[in-house]
Amino acid sequence: MGRSTRGGLRGVRMVGAAMSKFGKMDRSMREEAAQTGLAALNRSGLDPAVVEEILVANAFGLVDHQGHLGPLIATSLGLEGAATATVESACASGGVALQLAYTSVASGHTDATLVVGVEKVSQVDSKTATTYFTYGSDVPFEAGCGATFPALYATLATAYLHKYGATEEQLAHVAVKNHKNALANPNAHLHKAISVEQVLKSPYVAWPLKFYDCCPFSDGAAAVLLVSEALAKAWGVGGVEVLGSGRGGSAAQLSTRASLVEIPGTRQAAAQAFSQAGLRPKDVDFAEVHDCFTIAEVLAIEDLGLVKKGKGAEAAVDGLTSLSGDLPVNPSGGLKAKGHPVGATGVGQAVEVFEQLDGRAGARQVKGAEVGLSHNIGATGGSCAVHVFRRV
Amino acid sequence: MGRSTRGGLRGVRMVGAAMSKFGKMDRSMREEAAQTGLAALNRSGLDPAVVEEILVANAFGLVDHQGHLGPLIATSLGLEGAATATVESACASGGVALQLAYTSVASGHTDATLVVGVEKVSQVDSKTATTYFTYGSDVPFEAGCGATFPALYATLATAYLHKYGATEEQLAHVAVKNHKNALANPNAHLHKAISVEQVLKSPYVAWPLKFYDCCPFSDGAAAVLLVSEALAKAWGVGGVEVLGSGRGGSAAQLSTRASLVEIPGTRQAAAQAFSQAGLRPKDVDFAEVHDCFTIAEVLAIEDLGLVKKGKGAEAAVDGLTSLSGDLPVNPSGGLKAKGHPVGATGVGQAVEVFEQLDGRAGARQVKGAEVGLSHNIGATGGSCAVHVFRRV
Repeated sequence: MGRSTRGGLRGVRMVGAAMSKFGKMDRSMREEAAQTGLAALNRSGLDPAVVEEILVANAFGLVDHQGHLGPLIATSLGLEGAATATVESACASGGVALQLAYTSVASGHTDATLVVGVEKVSQVDSKTATTYFTYGSDVPFEAGCGATFPALYATLATAYLHKYGATEEQLAHVAVKNHKNALANPNAHLHKAISVEQVLKSPYVAWPLKFYDCCPFSDGAAAVLLVSEALAKAWGVGGVEVLGSGRGGSAAQLSTRASLVEIPGTRQAAAQAFSQAGLRPKDVDFAEVHDCFTIAEVLAIEDLGLVKKGKGAEAAVDGLTSLSGDLPVNPSGGLKAKGHPVGATGVGQAVEVFEQLDGRAGARQVKGAEVGLSHNIGATGGSCAVHVFRRV
Repeated sequence: MGRSTRGGLRGVRMVGAAMSKFGKMDRSMREEAAQTGLAALNRSGLDPAVVEEILVANAFGLVDHQGHLGPLIATSLGLEGAATATVESACASGGVALQLAYTSVASGHTDATLVVGVEKVSQVDSKTATTYFTYGSDVPFEAGCGATFPALYATLATAYLHKYGATEEQLAHVAVKNHKNALANPNAHLHKAISVEQVLKSPYVAWPLKFYDCCPFSDGAAAVLLVSEALAKAWGVGGVEVLGSGRGGSAAQLSTRASLVEIPGTRQAAAQAFSQAGLRPKDVDFAEVHDCFTIAEVLAIEDLGLVKKGKGAEAAVDGLTSLSGDLPVNPSGGLKAKGHPVGATGVGQAVEVFEQLDGRAGARQVKGAEVGLSHNIGATGGSCAVHVFRRV
């Protein structure tokens, strides 16, 4: 990745962040996206006119008959001169848009890029929403054969439990932890404490994954403002440093992968982000990772290098990844309980990192957090994005 | 646009380019995209393994139940580790993806990014295809009120004819020229010479625009490989320099614009591209511009600064923009006759620039071409991208 030129990149700061309450969106997608973008701009304290580019992360707008969201959102914000684009990488749309925005600012192409993720699926029934989600798979070879995402992740879970002797009970602890964290997040979709027993007794969706191993369908919007370090300093604002911004990919179909107990794209994106940041996994104080299913959090923390391979399922059990543990994972509640409004998900992770590193996460504050990581994947990891942030 | 740091950007070359025959696609979208990407890689002479990122320009894939195209195309190319993203900006998807790819390479984020544009609409009837296109407008305020794109461009044409005293006959000359150019382009959708009289006698679609003022619905794929100058030199390949890469935006709805005889986003994108290139409009030897309707070419060459405001309609009449004129415009045949496969359109323009600057455009070769420009817009200019290229 052209590392020799890294030195030529400018420092990038995240100086504003905001999200809607995830769950059910009453406003139209464009209204919610614009209001959330405005809230992020207001939070930054910068004049909105500094924004030169707006990248919109959205997966399903076109299915609901509205594409080309960028100019609509820009116009709503009074920024109709801004260059825009919609970025779609299935459930990684937000993280991928964030990475492209980082490159825009780091390269000097813009001084300020606003990233707005937005999704609304509640206007359709849950069967239709499930169908929308399958468009992120290799449709003729996966969804078309009945392999929806619960089935695909169940395949990964089966391989994992078999190889490492992990248990359904261990996976249940991931769900319990993330639901508990979400209780302290006013913007989370689900505010419901659950027990390991409840998870284990919930109906199977695709063995070994049960109802409570799966994240909900959510509506929502999230926005972050990235600016050059120079612009942040000129405006006298601190914010959060974006130290590393990486992306990676994996073979589209699970059936062609060499291993079912790792996501190659996560490893690649993490290697890139850590190398760029000049940090190692052990430097991370907390992480927001892609836990669309409980097994996904387990694989994520292993592939990110935060725990050893095969040790991820124990992490929620022994408290390592709890809010008071040595390595809090998904303090926001994660996709599992904060919610998963596809295009907004990866941007929402960055919002949580911002709140944590800004010390404003309230009852879910990770104590002494200096370095945070976000990890967002599309489908079963066909697209992956990893970001490393540090408090200024 | 952070111009002070431009000096930190690396030189970028387009070293490979290919397109399918525009018109009707028999293969699936993923197959055509992969085959076209492979042809671009083969043309470059570089090992495909150099590709680190694939940006896919596509507008309507999701409507046809397949999103997340990047990993599918990457996997088909044996590049499953590549980071991917789908970029949608309505009819500017290709040009906008090209701009994002430029920034990736120029910044050093990647050494090589493949841009693949693809669209397939022939599987649906033309009424449905028309509906797909309307998703690029501000749906509730434009398409939802009956203002499809022919109507919106007719509004622009009406304002233009009124303000500058231009005529329908002048617009007809644009169509005649571009159909003539396409006769020499084996990959063009339409191979049919037309006369001014035929255009004028064709039925009105939306006054003053007639059937022959409008581009066709096309399927198609196009791909270009962008690499760092250093990588191109290491492989001993020449290619084409990407000197300037700009984007801009305009208010989403026509109804809110201050003027109906210009596209602000085109002017902004052009200013950015020319500034970056260190060139002026008079340095351009030929241009591929966004002529979805004849009036669009007229506005484009004016807003790009290639002719004076109000003089664009005369340009095709007096031969300035013909293949043998001083400033050939749309030597490929343009959207009007080469075709308009939405996601592929902007990438296809870059393919034509590559062929022209590489001196391989055959019977439609622009003599002595050193500097070429491409111009791609989404909807009525909500998104705009302009690129300036030079022969190495």
